[in-house]
Amino acid sequence: MTKLVECVPNFSEGRDQEVLDALAAQARGVAGVTLLDYSSDQSHNRSVFTLVGDPDGIAEAAFRLCELASEKIDLTKHTGAHPRMGATDVIPFIPVKDVTVAECVAISKTVAERIWRELAIPSFLYEDSATRPERQNLATVRKGQFEGMPEKLLQDDWAPDYGARQVHPTAGVTAIGARMPLVAFNVNLDTSDLAIAKAIAKTIRGSSGGYKHCKALGVLLEDRDIAQVSMNMVNFEGTPLYRVVEAIKFEARRYGVRVIGTEVVGLTPAKALIDAAEYYLQIEGFDYGRQVLENHLLG
Amino acid sequence: MTKLVECVPNFSEGRDQEVLDALAAQARGVAGVTLLDYSSDQSHNRSVFTLVGDPDGIAEAAFRLCELASEKIDLTKHTGAHPRMGATDVIPFIPVKDVTVAECVAISKTVAERIWRELAIPSFLYEDSATRPERQNLATVRKGQFEGMPEKLLQDDWAPDYGARQVHPTAGVTAIGARMPLVAFNVNLDTSDLAIAKAIAKTIRGSSGGYKHCKALGVLLEDRDIAQVSMNMVNFEGTPLYRVVEAIKFEARRYGVRVIGTEVVGLTPAKALIDAAEYYLQIEGFDYGRQVLENHLLG
Repeated sequence: MTKLVECVPNFSEGRDQEVLDALAAQARGVAGVTLLDYSSDQSHNRSVFTLVGDPDGIAEAAFRLCELASEKIDLTKHTGAHPRMGATDVIPFIPVKDVTVAECVAISKTVAERIWRELAIPSFLYEDSATRPERQNLATVRKGQFEGMPEKLLQDDWAPDYGARQVHPTAGVTAIGARMPLVAFNVNLDTSDLAIAKAIAKTIRGSSGGYKHCKALGVLLEDRDIAQVSMNMVNFEGTPLYRVVEAIKFEARRYGVRVIGTEVVGLTPAKALIDAAEYYLQIEGFDYGRQVLENHLLG
Repeated sequence: MTKLVECVPNFSEGRDQEVLDALAAQARGVAGVTLLDYSSDQSHNRSVFTLVGDPDGIAEAAFRLCELASEKIDLTKHTGAHPRMGATDVIPFIPVKDVTVAECVAISKTVAERIWRELAIPSFLYEDSATRPERQNLATVRKGQFEGMPEKLLQDDWAPDYGARQVHPTAGVTAIGARMPLVAFNVNLDTSDLAIAKAIAKTIRGSSGGYKHCKALGVLLEDRDIAQVSMNMVNFEGTPLYRVVEAIKFEARRYGVRVIGTEVVGLTPAKALIDAAEYYLQIEGFDYGRQVLENHLLG
């Protein structure tokens, strides 16, 4: 069986097509790795690449992309709506097939070490690779952003996991880590009252007492004039999609509000949705690995 | 993109392990084809093989298995609970990836022609390959079974699609056709009253006015003392799983009966379950081909 790891590096460039083309070409040039997708956001001035490959190939690709980004992207000149601290801002490694999170943690450390040794870019290990609890959360690690990093790295608690207490002058600092596949999942409400979506999001997200593996915000969809609970499901096995949908329904009821639809943004592992089918169809004793036809076709 | 076709030949042998081993070895020996699974039923005296491969490989494998079965299985000596008319009783071809049903129809005709030309086994085209409506249904085609076929082939309406009006003396007649993937799906009720399961099955199945692509029977699970609606979902896109589950729930209500669980038997395409998740989670605008991660990994 072929081991497959997904890697979703985020680069602080979303406007210069030449740089993006060069990064895409770099990704495609690594043996054993497939570039599935890449997309950019102009206002964020940021791009997300999605690669998949065997463990050695994916580690090589992550390094080479980071190397090229450090040559092409100058954070001292970067503006954009999205928080960022590095030319390669964050490199998550995600198990896809016959690979454990622990193996992805090992890959993240190998890449972090090499990025320091060969490129002089320091890094923080985050999510499941974190060396202490307060480094699990990317937002906490990135707080201060590129401009605040020189001072932050000198603080007692914020020595980088790899590298010296000194940012790379133009490429900054990178966060590297293993995590479960993330499903971006939104629930739309039949209200335009943002306060209701915010109140519901608060009851759902782990950080304020809700479901551990769910991050949630209330947002307003201005074009449709409806409020939305916008979520990142950071571990869909620990906190399944159906559970947050059902919980949002009963929280919404107190406001006389209903769920009118949901959205999956971007890619999702099949299992995140099949788990929901198992729940709602009440399937007994389903064996995902053996009973789903496609699982026999992936090498 | 690699085209993938599934082939699920049924052989009239479920007891002689030597014959089954020989068939399995034959399947494994064809380039471009993978034997996913095979299982036998002693009381049926019948085995089901599941192969997947590219169109040319799968056609070659189907022929070679049929050839070996005609050498190893003698229907004049066959007894078993399951209806049958041939050593290779039925050969369905099923689109899995980047293949249409029409392409599978073409494969079925190629194989049927070769089986007549090289093995002198006549065949009927059934399901989506059928040359007239009454040949779509396998049960209709097979009626009379092996023992009745010599006489049936001489009837005005029952000339085989390929071959002469004469059965192969020991290998009989084979049904060959293309069909959508079939999902064997059962719904368990909180009653031991078989009559209720039968009455519900009648409202659900296409043949008695229910959902077109659903075949349904009422059965009793003796070990659990509960009644079950046992179904073959022969086109899960035309008749989705969630629709029969919800319909069974409302039909059951008139008897004060509830659905206590369901079962998926054997393999299912991921999409059959993901369609259910889309319905129950109310996902808007989901693009199965693009948004499911695994679909980008299948070559």
